[in-house]
Amino acid sequence: MAMSSLNRDLFYDQTFNSIFDTDQRIEALLAFEKELAIAQSAIGLIPKSAAQAIENSCQSGFIDIERLTVESALGGNVLIALLKQCTELLQKEESGSYHYIHFGATSQDAIDTAAMIQYKKAAYWINDKLKQLILQLAERAEAHQHTPMIGRTFLQQAKPITFGLKIAGWIDGLIPVYQSMDSLRFPVQLGGAVGNWTGLDAQAYETISASVAQNLQLDQPLKPWHSQRQSIIQIATTLGMLHAHLSKLTTDLILMAQTEIGEISFDDPGKGGSSSMPHKNNPVNGILVLANGIRVPHLVATILECAATDHERALGSWHAEWEVMEDLFKLTAGSMRLVEEMMAHLVVHPDRMLANIKWTNGLVFADVVENAMAMKLGKINAHDLVEKACIESRSTGVSLQTLLAGRPEINTNFTLQDLENWFNVENNLGLSHHFTGLVLKRVKDVFGG
Amino acid sequence: MAMSSLNRDLFYDQTFNSIFDTDQRIEALLAFEKELAIAQSAIGLIPKSAAQAIENSCQSGFIDIERLTVESALGGNVLIALLKQCTELLQKEESGSYHYIHFGATSQDAIDTAAMIQYKKAAYWINDKLKQLILQLAERAEAHQHTPMIGRTFLQQAKPITFGLKIAGWIDGLIPVYQSMDSLRFPVQLGGAVGNWTGLDAQAYETISASVAQNLQLDQPLKPWHSQRQSIIQIATTLGMLHAHLSKLTTDLILMAQTEIGEISFDDPGKGGSSSMPHKNNPVNGILVLANGIRVPHLVATILECAATDHERALGSWHAEWEVMEDLFKLTAGSMRLVEEMMAHLVVHPDRMLANIKWTNGLVFADVVENAMAMKLGKINAHDLVEKACIESRSTGVSLQTLLAGRPEINTNFTLQDLENWFNVENNLGLSHHFTGLVLKRVKDVFGG
Amino acid sequence: MAMSSLNRDLFYDQTFNSIFDTDQRIEALLAFEKELAIAQSAIGLIPKSAAQAIENSCQSGFIDIERLTVESALGGNVLIALLKQCTELLQKEESGSYHYIHFGATSQDAIDTAAMIQYKKAAYWINDKLKQLILQLAERAEAHQHTPMIGRTFLQQAKPITFGLKIAGWIDGLIPVYQSMDSLRFPVQLGGAVGNWTGLDAQAYETISASVAQNLQLDQPLKPWHSQRQSIIQIATTLGMLHAHLSKLTTDLILMAQTEIGEISFDDPGKGGSSSMPHKNNPVNGILVLANGIRVPHLVATILECAATDHERALGSWHAEWEVMEDLFKLTAGSMRLVEEMMAHLVVHPDRMLANIKWTNGLVFADVVENAMAMKLGKINAHDLVEKACIESRSTGVSLQTLLAGRPEINTNFTLQDLENWFNVENNLGLSHHFTGLVLKRVKDVFGG
Amino acid sequence: MAMSSLNRDLFYDQTFNSIFDTDQRIEALLAFEKELAIAQSAIGLIPKSAAQAIENSCQSGFIDIERLTVESALGGNVLIALLKQCTELLQKEESGSYHYIHFGATSQDAIDTAAMIQYKKAAYWINDKLKQLILQLAERAEAHQHTPMIGRTFLQQAKPITFGLKIAGWIDGLIPVYQSMDSLRFPVQLGGAVGNWTGLDAQAYETISASVAQNLQLDQPLKPWHSQRQSIIQIATTLGMLHAHLSKLTTDLILMAQTEIGEISFDDPGKGGSSSMPHKNNPVNGILVLANGIRVPHLVATILECAATDHERALGSWHAEWEVMEDLFKLTAGSMRLVEEMMAHLVVHPDRMLANIKWTNGLVFADVVENAMAMKLGKINAHDLVEKACIESRSTGVSLQTLLAGRPEINTNFTLQDLENWFNVENNLGLSHHFTGLVLKRVKDVFGG
Repeated sequence: MAMSSLNRDLFYDQTFNSIFDTDQRIEALLAFEKELAIAQSAIGLIPKSAAQAIENSCQSGFIDIERLTVESALGGNVLIALLKQCTELLQKEESGSYHYIHFGATSQDAIDTAAMIQYKKAAYWINDKLKQLILQLAERAEAHQHTPMIGRTFLQQAKPITFGLKIAGWIDGLIPVYQSMDSLRFPVQLGGAVGNWTGLDAQAYETISASVAQNLQLDQPLKPWHSQRQSIIQIATTLGMLHAHLSKLTTDLILMAQTEIGEISFDDPGKGGSSSMPHKNNPVNGILVLANGIRVPHLVATILECAATDHERALGSWHAEWEVMEDLFKLTAGSMRLVEEMMAHLVVHPDRMLANIKWTNGLVFADVVENAMAMKLGKINAHDLVEKACIESRSTGVSLQTLLAGRPEINTNFTLQDLENWFNVENNLGLSHHFTGLVLKRVKDVFGG
Repeated sequence: MAMSSLNRDLFYDQTFNSIFDTDQRIEALLAFEKELAIAQSAIGLIPKSAAQAIENSCQSGFIDIERLTVESALGGNVLIALLKQCTELLQKEESGSYHYIHFGATSQDAIDTAAMIQYKKAAYWINDKLKQLILQLAERAEAHQHTPMIGRTFLQQAKPITFGLKIAGWIDGLIPVYQSMDSLRFPVQLGGAVGNWTGLDAQAYETISASVAQNLQLDQPLKPWHSQRQSIIQIATTLGMLHAHLSKLTTDLILMAQTEIGEISFDDPGKGGSSSMPHKNNPVNGILVLANGIRVPHLVATILECAATDHERALGSWHAEWEVMEDLFKLTAGSMRLVEEMMAHLVVHPDRMLANIKWTNGLVFADVVENAMAMKLGKINAHDLVEKACIESRSTGVSLQTLLAGRPEINTNFTLQDLENWFNVENNLGLSHHFTGLVLKRVKDVFGG
Repeated sequence: MAMSSLNRDLFYDQTFNSIFDTDQRIEALLAFEKELAIAQSAIGLIPKSAAQAIENSCQSGFIDIERLTVESALGGNVLIALLKQCTELLQKEESGSYHYIHFGATSQDAIDTAAMIQYKKAAYWINDKLKQLILQLAERAEAHQHTPMIGRTFLQQAKPITFGLKIAGWIDGLIPVYQSMDSLRFPVQLGGAVGNWTGLDAQAYETISASVAQNLQLDQPLKPWHSQRQSIIQIATTLGMLHAHLSKLTTDLILMAQTEIGEISFDDPGKGGSSSMPHKNNPVNGILVLANGIRVPHLVATILECAATDHERALGSWHAEWEVMEDLFKLTAGSMRLVEEMMAHLVVHPDRMLANIKWTNGLVFADVVENAMAMKLGKINAHDLVEKACIESRSTGVSLQTLLAGRPEINTNFTLQDLENWFNVENNLGLSHHFTGLVLKRVKDVFGG
Repeated sequence: MAMSSLNRDLFYDQTFNSIFDTDQRIEALLAFEKELAIAQSAIGLIPKSAAQAIENSCQSGFIDIERLTVESALGGNVLIALLKQCTELLQKEESGSYHYIHFGATSQDAIDTAAMIQYKKAAYWINDKLKQLILQLAERAEAHQHTPMIGRTFLQQAKPITFGLKIAGWIDGLIPVYQSMDSLRFPVQLGGAVGNWTGLDAQAYETISASVAQNLQLDQPLKPWHSQRQSIIQIATTLGMLHAHLSKLTTDLILMAQTEIGEISFDDPGKGGSSSMPHKNNPVNGILVLANGIRVPHLVATILECAATDHERALGSWHAEWEVMEDLFKLTAGSMRLVEEMMAHLVVHPDRMLANIKWTNGLVFADVVENAMAMKLGKINAHDLVEKACIESRSTGVSLQTLLAGRPEINTNFTLQDLENWFNVENNLGLSHHFTGLVLKRVKDVFGG
């Protein structure tokens, strides 16, 4: 319900949110009623004049919204109250046509179909943004294919990777979600009071159903789905998966933006700064993505719970869906906008990435060095040697490379160039470049270009 | 975020919701700033004229809300944007006073305190309604202390209880929640940038803190709690507990309102009816309570998750709290209103309750009868006799009492009056009356009267 | 963690659960190590003798499980502790081979891959059962294509459907889940310490990766996915969707099994009965499905939350996945078993279904009758007439048909046969048969036969 | 259900878990039956010999657990199956006494009471540990009252605090949870089939109920609570609150343990290390606390959802409680153990804390310095001066203090000692010491000492 409007530009995207505006919802409900009437008139079930009257008279601009809101409480949903106003409008215009609005349909037919009209718009909006994000990330990944940074596991420095690889990982998570979003189905609902549509033969029903679906650009389901919410939970879980990946990439960025890490920052004048604390650069957009990300899994769970309906129309779990789906869409769309802004203002600091790799005075290369030395010295000798040097390095702050360079076993068996090679970051990136390339190729395969 | 306003009178209570209106939020934020200034001026920390200017100039009516909304996005919360406008207002009015607004405070001080002002109002509103509900339920329980109905376990008929006992159970669940709500604490927040308030000695700080708390009618905490959200999760879990009990009583009522059960109905003209399906009487209010009840536990979980903050101000989990707490309050308050309406229109059908007890032709008394007969016949004989009679009753539809009355073992050992007594519902209610009485006494103890 | 074993046969399926037994988990971990060694030896990276030694020595039977459990705590996962024992085993057997186990890999490679081996088995087990369930439901739907029952919305009687249509609805929800389950991917994990596998060229890596995937019958991913949990959340949400549909059909059945409804029962001797309460027939299996269904959405949410990982290996969210995924699988599999048993013992009572349709004395046909009469009487007259008759029927208990038959307007315009037709259940089933047929055809399309 | 035992020492505490062992559960169930018989025999309701026989014969050691497990599935819970074995045991021992076990009670009476016996033990275990933790934290807080570290908001450096204050914050969150845990109630359940206990007068019932409660060291409830789960949700939410605070302190520690931050480390030989990556020191215990912390809120939500029961015994939501409560307890207890280990091995690095404060070359003091200078220079001049110096410091790396020392406006108005004072960390700790002191005093008030 109406959150304080003050949060509008924090968690959300204003343009996206308008898809769910009250007038858009009424438009979508009336679109269902109009298309139903048109399809029914096309096969002679209702007069063409009635369909025409419904199209002309039942316009969202004519609806008294305050009255609609108040009267919604009587029927437990908006539809009965809306039909009441439509009927009055039709009675003004043309005698008789009011009999033919919502003919044979039930409230849930209109409400579910209208929701699908809105959900489809919303999903397309998000997926368009997602495509742009993936393409933008791909550019960044390509640009940073050779930018070394430290890989971290459990927030401890582990071994070097590239920033390109990190970004490629994000993309790798997002592509299947893009494909899932892209293959979502948005079925029309057309079942009548108990989902078995009465008063028509099968052929007439199928003709009407196909026509309504086509004209609303929705999918035609196998049968009415009042109590089978597969399409809804499919949408909800897909949004949940999307946000998980958005939260993941945001978490990485914010950890990299820590004052003491400083590997990235956001060049976003006027945002996140503090006049009194000049060192402050709060990652505002990212913070808000994480905030949204906390809420989303719980909303997905709510929708999954709602799907365990009872009989032919669910006792509350249908109603709970409405706002939760809307929240789910709005928070995800808001996060898409926030991530987009984050990426637009992202400044990468390769120097700090490199400096952080060197933070441990070479200890992050210890295993590589040990393995290299083992070839000539044997595994056990190599291990002893490295272990001792590591301990010395930690207590003295002298780099591991320098310490090893001073050991006779090393000088006897290896050259200083060997040492130089082992401790060269470039030689310690494994298949970072290869994996990044695979992901970039996949982006091209999926999106062309 | 702004849900379609069309749901306003469905899931929510319009009056309650206004506690969270944008202007109320701004009022609460400004109240913090004013009381802080007044307290600081009282000990000479800032000029009294500055406090006066802040009180005069920083009024919610002077705030440009659209600008506030847009600029909130820059700082990641409303406060910096609000202070910007306050500063401009103060600069107009009196030179210098603008230096003293929000003196020493941080955004979270104002935002958390303002939230507590709103939460306290909201909690009191709900608890007032809860008290009324408990008293109303107590009246109903008293009225139905002697109204037998069948007790049901796993939706199967079990043995008789009274409707009074069922209601007493609801009350028994609600009273401790009322007491928990009543003992909630709503602490002021006053910590400065990192929760250690700089620039004041301890005594001066404590004086200011006590004064702000007192003037805002909030509690004074032991210390700032930016990153310790105990008060928040205490509120959230208490609301969650309240709704669990509301959902429980609603579930019972709706199950009793099933067409084939018919033990209660809602006499709510114009609500839940259907012009075309005259037998329909949808329990609209109850449906919406159940809808809210599906969402609430997930919102409580979200708040619990948010409480695992990081360092001195949380990375998103603070922000996620804002709307989720508001939703939690609004849905719970909405359900309070809906339950109140349900109870106001509740019609009890003792005849149908009695008829349902008789539904099984006396089989629900079989164990009582068996135990009674066992005294004279022995446990095994009694069991055999009853079991056979039960089987016959189920296949023939003849009542168990009639069948037993025809058995020689019964006639030899018992009188027809014995049988009559065993099958008398009044004799099969156990301690229903006693337990109901204990609960009614508890209501008096807690609420007086 | 070890739940009381007493719940084993309640919520779970014992056979299924064994997929996750400790020895199965160790087997799966060792299978990864063996296949990795074999693939590495095939391209000459490690000696063939080492691979052979690993295969021979690293058997689950040789592992000291108590020691493994204790030592797991040191590394924070089982793998390091397992490798310690493997190394000792290899040291016993053959000199040198112990250097080559887990060569280049990281703990997460083995643990994720082993999990996928188990998840794949588990998913196939469930989907096999799901196929059987769908086929069994299809048989039932076919058998009850012409069995009328009342449709219920909001637990109020609405209008008639067939039991076949209700079952067809269940199937319609389950088929897309079956297809989703069927297309799940179970990728091998092979990334090394930070997901960029060091020490190999790309071609060698891809050869090894393909070989390990193939020999373990897993999928080869585009790249390592330590921190991109798309495959995991895809599995989790699919299980969540499946359980939603299981809970839905169970809810319907249990509501139909209410004492006063009695449309179905479970003929399951020894189950759910009560020696002392002979009328009792608790739907034990269904109760347990609903219990599992309460837990599942929360587990799915947990997994979605876990997917927001940090950097190259997640701080706890990876670890939280392990038991939650296992719970999710076990509860879903348990419910599959329970639903299977429910269906096996399901007894349908068409007589009670018919009796319940007649419960309202014909009022459920009022809209049909009104529409039929409107043709000749006009909408308004028809409505008035029916409305009055309905009110009379409710207060007197006389059937609507009888009351209407006595009205002069009816006798003048219609025949008694007309009335008979309007109130004939068979004429009030709408497209129940058609929609059921579409679903049965879909079952054939998907499963053949 | 039985998780792989391999996780036993990861997420859990083995000693604690034994509270929930199968034999403990059977003991608790039998304890209920014994105390019920003893109380009933004391008022002459059943023979004393029967009570004696029940006490002698119904011992957990005599129960065939595999049979119990299998037969539990028939009744949908363990109790009927257990009574079957008890009856057989009693039949062996003494004729007639088997009639008197579980006399008048229902399965849920025994199962809920037994659960409360286990929950009380579990809660006391946890709260004992919690007390120890708070005392240990208090010692640490006292020891670090004067240890400065940087305060961080949104993972950005903000201004200095002390490590003592950070710890005091943790304590401040934990104390109210300790008090909540301490005041939890664990009521006996004694309601009979439908919660109205039949066959006894009120006084006799109350005598029995009081006696059973007293002998089992449980609380006596106002009335039976089969369908009012207030006690359960109170326990669950309290555990949820506790874990939120454990997760919070763990998050702080792990962030401080990051390689580049290095303010604390864990001196836990053999734990979290890596032979090949000598710089690695994974905070294993903390990782596992965070893993548990992800799961807990979802479990609390599940329990809240379960509390919306139906009628006199809940359809699945009662059953879902059993394992979820157990998980909730076990994960929380496990985390208590893990946090205890973390604290035992915690090594604090005050030098690194100090070094990190200096990370920004003095910029974290900019606002303090600006305020101090404003006294003489005016707010605007001071701001301009500091702002410029900050920009120069960031680009040159020269410290803010040095830069300001070189400015004529400073030299004219202030001494070098002034500058020294402003940039002295000790002078920038605000009320850190005061707030820490308040918390330490509170610890003494609550725990004595």
